[in-house]
Amino acid sequence: MDYQKILEDIELEIKPMLGDGKVADYIPVLSSIDPNQFAMSITLFDGTQYNIGASQKLFSIQSISKVFTYTLALKFYADKFYGRVGHEPSGDPFNSLVQLEYENGVPRNPFINAGAINVTDALISYYHSSESTYKEIIEFIRSIADEKEIYMDKAVALSEMEHGYRNISLASLMKSFDNLDNSVLDVVQTYFNHCSIEMNTQMLSRSMLYLANHGFDPVTNKAYISPSQAKRINAVMLTCGHYDASGDFAYNVGLPGKSGVGGGIVAIVPAKMALSVWSPGLNAQGNSLAGTKALELFTTKTGLSIF
Amino acid sequence: MDYQKILEDIELEIKPMLGDGKVADYIPVLSSIDPNQFAMSITLFDGTQYNIGASQKLFSIQSISKVFTYTLALKFYADKFYGRVGHEPSGDPFNSLVQLEYENGVPRNPFINAGAINVTDALISYYHSSESTYKEIIEFIRSIADEKEIYMDKAVALSEMEHGYRNISLASLMKSFDNLDNSVLDVVQTYFNHCSIEMNTQMLSRSMLYLANHGFDPVTNKAYISPSQAKRINAVMLTCGHYDASGDFAYNVGLPGKSGVGGGIVAIVPAKMALSVWSPGLNAQGNSLAGTKALELFTTKTGLSIF
Amino acid sequence: MDYQKILEDIELEIKPMLGDGKVADYIPVLSSIDPNQFAMSITLFDGTQYNIGASQKLFSIQSISKVFTYTLALKFYADKFYGRVGHEPSGDPFNSLVQLEYENGVPRNPFINAGAINVTDALISYYHSSESTYKEIIEFIRSIADEKEIYMDKAVALSEMEHGYRNISLASLMKSFDNLDNSVLDVVQTYFNHCSIEMNTQMLSRSMLYLANHGFDPVTNKAYISPSQAKRINAVMLTCGHYDASGDFAYNVGLPGKSGVGGGIVAIVPAKMALSVWSPGLNAQGNSLAGTKALELFTTKTGLSIF
Amino acid sequence: MDYQKILEDIELEIKPMLGDGKVADYIPVLSSIDPNQFAMSITLFDGTQYNIGASQKLFSIQSISKVFTYTLALKFYADKFYGRVGHEPSGDPFNSLVQLEYENGVPRNPFINAGAINVTDALISYYHSSESTYKEIIEFIRSIADEKEIYMDKAVALSEMEHGYRNISLASLMKSFDNLDNSVLDVVQTYFNHCSIEMNTQMLSRSMLYLANHGFDPVTNKAYISPSQAKRINAVMLTCGHYDASGDFAYNVGLPGKSGVGGGIVAIVPAKMALSVWSPGLNAQGNSLAGTKALELFTTKTGLSIF
Repeated sequence: MDYQKILEDIELEIKPMLGDGKVADYIPVLSSIDPNQFAMSITLFDGTQYNIGASQKLFSIQSISKVFTYTLALKFYADKFYGRVGHEPSGDPFNSLVQLEYENGVPRNPFINAGAINVTDALISYYHSSESTYKEIIEFIRSIADEKEIYMDKAVALSEMEHGYRNISLASLMKSFDNLDNSVLDVVQTYFNHCSIEMNTQMLSRSMLYLANHGFDPVTNKAYISPSQAKRINAVMLTCGHYDASGDFAYNVGLPGKSGVGGGIVAIVPAKMALSVWSPGLNAQGNSLAGTKALELFTTKTGLSIF
Repeated sequence: MDYQKILEDIELEIKPMLGDGKVADYIPVLSSIDPNQFAMSITLFDGTQYNIGASQKLFSIQSISKVFTYTLALKFYADKFYGRVGHEPSGDPFNSLVQLEYENGVPRNPFINAGAINVTDALISYYHSSESTYKEIIEFIRSIADEKEIYMDKAVALSEMEHGYRNISLASLMKSFDNLDNSVLDVVQTYFNHCSIEMNTQMLSRSMLYLANHGFDPVTNKAYISPSQAKRINAVMLTCGHYDASGDFAYNVGLPGKSGVGGGIVAIVPAKMALSVWSPGLNAQGNSLAGTKALELFTTKTGLSIF
Repeated sequence: MDYQKILEDIELEIKPMLGDGKVADYIPVLSSIDPNQFAMSITLFDGTQYNIGASQKLFSIQSISKVFTYTLALKFYADKFYGRVGHEPSGDPFNSLVQLEYENGVPRNPFINAGAINVTDALISYYHSSESTYKEIIEFIRSIADEKEIYMDKAVALSEMEHGYRNISLASLMKSFDNLDNSVLDVVQTYFNHCSIEMNTQMLSRSMLYLANHGFDPVTNKAYISPSQAKRINAVMLTCGHYDASGDFAYNVGLPGKSGVGGGIVAIVPAKMALSVWSPGLNAQGNSLAGTKALELFTTKTGLSIF
Repeated sequence: MDYQKILEDIELEIKPMLGDGKVADYIPVLSSIDPNQFAMSITLFDGTQYNIGASQKLFSIQSISKVFTYTLALKFYADKFYGRVGHEPSGDPFNSLVQLEYENGVPRNPFINAGAINVTDALISYYHSSESTYKEIIEFIRSIADEKEIYMDKAVALSEMEHGYRNISLASLMKSFDNLDNSVLDVVQTYFNHCSIEMNTQMLSRSMLYLANHGFDPVTNKAYISPSQAKRINAVMLTCGHYDASGDFAYNVGLPGKSGVGGGIVAIVPAKMALSVWSPGLNAQGNSLAGTKALELFTTKTGLSIF
């Protein structure tokens, strides 16, 4: 298939939609981003990349980082992790306290905020400190992306913390249910740190190859997790990867994926490739508007879908 | 692959679990069923079947019928249907009114009770009467199962109606939001009628081939729905097919499927085959306990999974 | 105190507010009422009445009838009634299903719709039929109002039933929890019948004397209920009498009272008098806007308040 | 009336119930208290006191302090306060986040935890620091109780903070909705400080005289708040003073009152007297079991009730 041609066609069709969504505005640093930007990258198992648009432009990966921290947590805790964080869709906005309270402080899945905060807490317990935890997370991302120059945007991390009272509320609630081991502020700051990492679509599509290929990197042959763990992360991405629009994404796109409020989305075609798309304008559920459409066009044009 | 051997191995491993679950007891007719029963069937695209256990024993298909009515509704209404019934996971027990009230009478998806009742209402509007609707549903099922001898268990249908106040409550609530066209009692009785259809695992696995094969039957070559519609039904089965354990099923089994409180489950391996399993003992979420485990063993043993 | 002068002052102050609220529009018969109407009546223990405005104009008493049916239920069932209907404020809009579902079909109090429907059901069980129940209710009202010419508006009762799916939903939900003895449609129709009774403020203020006077009528000396039962009904009026604005009414008015969406309100000053006010424009919580204000002015001007 | 005799009768009847309830156990310091204790005090407008049981024994006043802080807030902010904290019953357990989230961070009333924390925040803004706020609160309590020797139990205050994650969660949630001005930890610590003040029933019944007497102390003639403010605090005590059993208290006791998990309750008979009772065993809603019963016996024996 001529992937470059497909990307070009997608860009043409997507152009009129750019600017339709709403850039994340809960922190000042993110709200000033130009919504008329677009990038898309495909990485095949031999490492070949196809790119379109601003594919070298860095952006805040935000919730996409939850895929990486969940990978680390699953690797070290395996299924023992299940009592702390479930893997059911939440059926509620991503930062809702209601469900967390009714379900006694056990988050529904690792991709809603409470779940990802809990995963970060588990990693801090495993790595013994928030500093070493952040270090291990970013080293892991650099490894799977095969790229050393990946960093956190400290201004974003600080600004998140300043406006992070809802996440502090979620973490405190889990702690009141004895489902958080470490200090609330430490855990939340570490969580914001990994959310504030910056990448571009080239790096992100490259970084997801291990999930498209049963847990090991087809280019470097490094094994990160077991095939069964990779399969499970993909299942959680499919059922819970897009907040309250996860069903919509499965229905229209049909690929396991994960979005972030920075406007990025990653997705995989099992046994074939990994993709990433970026456009900062968001839809009502907090997912990239043009990005979601671009992936839907991709599966329509290629017939690639897990269903 | 030696599917017969695989089914025999699964049966051996499943035996000790039989009787662990709890038979559905909300109506007397269902509560008297012996939980120590098990059956499993596989149907390939050339029509070959592999069976184990009581694969000719008829049972109440219950919520599995929702797949068939949703197929008919999608065929006739296509995406116009979306305003009436969504396709997001619900994150709440299958018969919850809470979410329906907060979301103004629009059910989250066609596989929770409210959604399936709404789908039945749409079919009655399309077919002009509850009688003709039921007739079209059962004829459709006979066609996709390639089997004429499929009938409703009238005793079950009547008993459901007698104990059906929660579903009447759901239908009345939708009607109060102007999201139900026909008479509450007519719609609910028609819904119970198609839930009370009896099939066995041979028939059920045969009946799902069209969903594994882009909407047309690979044996008879009859086209039922478009490839895109088939893909979408599969997506909804994956994200919403097992009530509040849909994430669990995706995580552990990794196939689009649908369960019913009669103890049956159907599932498909896209482009390969359709399966059905039956064991009446249910887990806490209302899905067949041994049946779910059997499908998990199947994907583990064969490596077949969409992820 | 010169009550007539006080009523005249209140009318003057209230005039500019008339028409500010929104007439109940859930059924056509009620929506056509002119909102610029106002009436207020006071009845003392010797039977003396003070009136202002359209105090002879009949209107639909609606939820005010719940006070009368609760009186009958408490009289016959006494505290045995408690397991069926509670007496706690609901903290939710008056017709919410959410709380009813979470609390297993036991309504919070007899003044939300579910509670009043349940009370009607208990009366039907006591009086053996819906016809005799309605007859006993209206005879009771005629007796406490000391007025034979009180009737139901059949057009309202029929229209309520036609648009009554939410109440049918509530009743069906209670029945699914085994907390309703009689037929859903019978109970709901009887409930709508007593809601559709028409009275004016003269009749209504007269009818409440028994609650201001420990359960017996100070004019006729008829004993209706025990002092302890009267005290309890007053307590429930204070904490639950105005839907989700009950706290507001206690805070600003400080008298036990009950409102209806027809625009009427009744209230009592214990050991002193009974009052009724009417103005069809409603506030956001479904209580008469001008009527609530008139009662607030009354307690401010007279210093009469239970606090 | 012979109040001493009435108290003696109440004590006799209450004795068999002592030890039935469950002492608050969310912090170790409180859980070790002997539940078989009882005290009751009445203070008349001339200062005369009637006491029974351990009426000089100090205990943690806990949520009773919310009456005092609300008094101060109402005094300084008057009705401007309403947009920050409502005065509706909550219909949910006292520390529920659900309602707070649905209602955008505005607590239902000043007597649920979120509301009282918000009141404390308002006082800190008024008094400029948490230290001066605590000082003003305790000085106010000493003044209305006419007793200088009233202190905080610092061990309780510290222990509350250590186990206070749910309250920190509530405060953080309000801050995320911009409904909290000061630092979360400062506000919550100040809140815990005033909850940890120790008093006995003699002091508490004395301290409530101003609310029974239109806002000014009948013994010292000091005016604390306006008659209208006193009336409103009493209304909120009646509708919201006992968490999710406020309706029950109004129904069975019929007096404005406020309970605390330390086992204390205060109540007033408007224009007549103030009361306090103490017994550490709590019922399911967190109110003193024997204390509630004692007050019910009091109103039954004396006929004193606002209804």
